[in-house]
Amino acid sequence: MPKDSDNSQRDDIVIGRNAVLELLRSAAPVEAVFIQKGLSGTVTKIAAIARDSGVPVKDAAAVKLDNMCAHGNHQGVIALTAGADYNEMDDIFKRAGDAPLFVVIADEIEDPHNLGALIRTAEAAGAHGLIIPKRRSAGLTFTVAKASAGAVAHLPVVRVANIAETIETLKKRGVWFYAADMEGQLWCETDFGGPCGLVIGSEGKGIGRLVKERCDFAVSLPMFGQINSLNASVAGGIIMYEIARQRMKTPNSR
Amino acid sequence: MPKDSDNSQRDDIVIGRNAVLELLRSAAPVEAVFIQKGLSGTVTKIAAIARDSGVPVKDAAAVKLDNMCAHGNHQGVIALTAGADYNEMDDIFKRAGDAPLFVVIADEIEDPHNLGALIRTAEAAGAHGLIIPKRRSAGLTFTVAKASAGAVAHLPVVRVANIAETIETLKKRGVWFYAADMEGQLWCETDFGGPCGLVIGSEGKGIGRLVKERCDFAVSLPMFGQINSLNASVAGGIIMYEIARQRMKTPNSR
Repeated sequence: MPKDSDNSQRDDIVIGRNAVLELLRSAAPVEAVFIQKGLSGTVTKIAAIARDSGVPVKDAAAVKLDNMCAHGNHQGVIALTAGADYNEMDDIFKRAGDAPLFVVIADEIEDPHNLGALIRTAEAAGAHGLIIPKRRSAGLTFTVAKASAGAVAHLPVVRVANIAETIETLKKRGVWFYAADMEGQLWCETDFGGPCGLVIGSEGKGIGRLVKERCDFAVSLPMFGQINSLNASVAGGIIMYEIARQRMKTPNSR
Repeated sequence: MPKDSDNSQRDDIVIGRNAVLELLRSAAPVEAVFIQKGLSGTVTKIAAIARDSGVPVKDAAAVKLDNMCAHGNHQGVIALTAGADYNEMDDIFKRAGDAPLFVVIADEIEDPHNLGALIRTAEAAGAHGLIIPKRRSAGLTFTVAKASAGAVAHLPVVRVANIAETIETLKKRGVWFYAADMEGQLWCETDFGGPCGLVIGSEGKGIGRLVKERCDFAVSLPMFGQINSLNASVAGGIIMYEIARQRMKTPNSR
């Protein structure tokens, strides 16, 4: 097991009772669960659930747990995670089934916390999958898996060589693409009916020109104050839940 | 408190006895004073002065202080400076002017990135201010100011001793309170008309019971997948923009 070289928390662990329970309930691979010696109650239950899932359970001194997570609030339980796998495009279509496709493209989101939050929100908002480019993007690292609160284990994440080409291919399969952009029509006046793909760009650069040109619509969020942009995962979440809101009103849309 | 990502000294702290005393005597906002455990003498006097000024004093192990300042000569005392000044409640009402009040309460959000993102989104969504509790909350540190993308300079942020009491006071001034909660009515079927306050809790614990009981409504976001919660700043952003969406449809509401 790797040692902490600095004082920051490792990215291959999940700490705390709820987070570890969530992880164990997901299909995500777990290497081991460490339980603080001498504790009982909830942690005993977590240990039992881990054993039932075939995950090795190890007793550890409190100080060891403290060191593993840089004195984070582990509540007596830490899980050591394994990485997450990428999916194939067909997994996204399979998840959609008969519902109109709802896919999110994270275009060059390099910050792992933002990518993780986008995966988490996409899973919660009912999207069928998320697509990232192979280059200039965070990958499915432990940090991303953790920031996704375990959603990487549920939502198909597909990595492609070329986002613009992928959009072309999916358009031929009937998907409409919406670029989140400062200069688009209002998010709440946009009709997201039918199979739809939402493209979120990075905060610094926005969506690349070649990708934006391939999109059918541009969608914007109004800025009522002095600042002129939102965090990428917040902006993505707002538009995803507008799509969810519109789909809730349409029968047979999910 | 933000972690050192590299090994250099942070720019939001003041180290050493004279420097911290000087800081406390100035009018500059101070977030907290950390005193090395087990020391007495001058540092005890500094702790007393800090407490008299209403600055929280925290005991910390020597190794923690060492890490905070990259092993600088802290002499057993480190002050965490604030990144921005707090406002008064009337600043929020002033910003609202004739529009129905729109205020966000961040209840015990300890993660500085989440608090910063909430301030940023609140400013962009047209909220008139944000309220945080003095205890168990990130304060207006540099990390929060940075995560807010500068929004702390525009949006009034008020710090109060007791959130439940503040809600009572604001209710007497005509404000309706909405708690973001897993067990509320759907966010998009909630009428946010009139002066409104949106309460966002921390991811781990949600909104405190006493605070929740004071709220008029509970508002929830549906979870369409397997995971059961969203990042606090994303959830807050989605509801804030639903409030913005409803206000856009109502003339004279901003």
